[in-house]
Amino acid sequence: MDWLDSIAWDAQGLVPVIAQEAGSGDVLMFAWMNREALALTAERGQAVYWSRSRKRLWHKGEESGHFQRVHSIRVDCDADVVLLTVTQLGHDPGIACHTGRHSCFFQVLQGGQWVTTTPVLQDPATIYNKP
Amino acid sequence: MDWLDSIAWDAQGLVPVIAQEAGSGDVLMFAWMNREALALTAERGQAVYWSRSRKRLWHKGEESGHFQRVHSIRVDCDADVVLLTVTQLGHDPGIACHTGRHSCFFQVLQGGQWVTTTPVLQDPATIYNKP
Repeated sequence: MDWLDSIAWDAQGLVPVIAQEAGSGDVLMFAWMNREALALTAERGQAVYWSRSRKRLWHKGEESGHFQRVHSIRVDCDADVVLLTVTQLGHDPGIACHTGRHSCFFQVLQGGQWVTTTPVLQDPATIYNKP
Repeated sequence: MDWLDSIAWDAQGLVPVIAQEAGSGDVLMFAWMNREALALTAERGQAVYWSRSRKRLWHKGEESGHFQRVHSIRVDCDADVVLLTVTQLGHDPGIACHTGRHSCFFQVLQGGQWVTTTPVLQDPATIYNKP
């Protein structure tokens, strides 16, 4: 059986995907893939997601240059969640978040409030509006 | 504003949640929470999820004894995904998966096939059917 047939795609034909940084173990981001995105991710060795807002394939880094090299593709016990280990390319340290931060998970709950814990590594204006 | 109001709950009133092991950085599991589950998780310092299949609150470990002590609660840039760091209690090493494995992400793609990479630490029959 095709390995893609093992995935328990949801009603929209999507599966949630967690991207974790190889080495550090940091959880960088969370996104979605359809069947084509997951097939392309495996084929190219770079993360290709499905953008639910733009309703199209989203080769992570296509605008920012912040591509993700994929080291491993895992699936959970119910085959309805995918876990990637990646190297975040294009900047050192890696920038996975559109806010210019390393990880999208930069807000932590402290004393009943969300507190931003990590710095912006690059101004998003210089990431997305290159001359 | 209540910190719970900052969450971008989906159409079903849920938010996806990633549980990551403190120390190892291993991604243990993925589940969902509604508002009450997230409030209880913060209040108790133990993970309480929303079971979509059973349509009720699910205090992780209530049957297995494999509770999760919560160290931090993070939210991503879009406030629509939660990341917990946890200590997986009840067994050493911790068992997060209902199959008796450390992590739910025990299948990795190798050569076009899903390969099981990690051992069962405890027979599920002895986890869930205690005398």
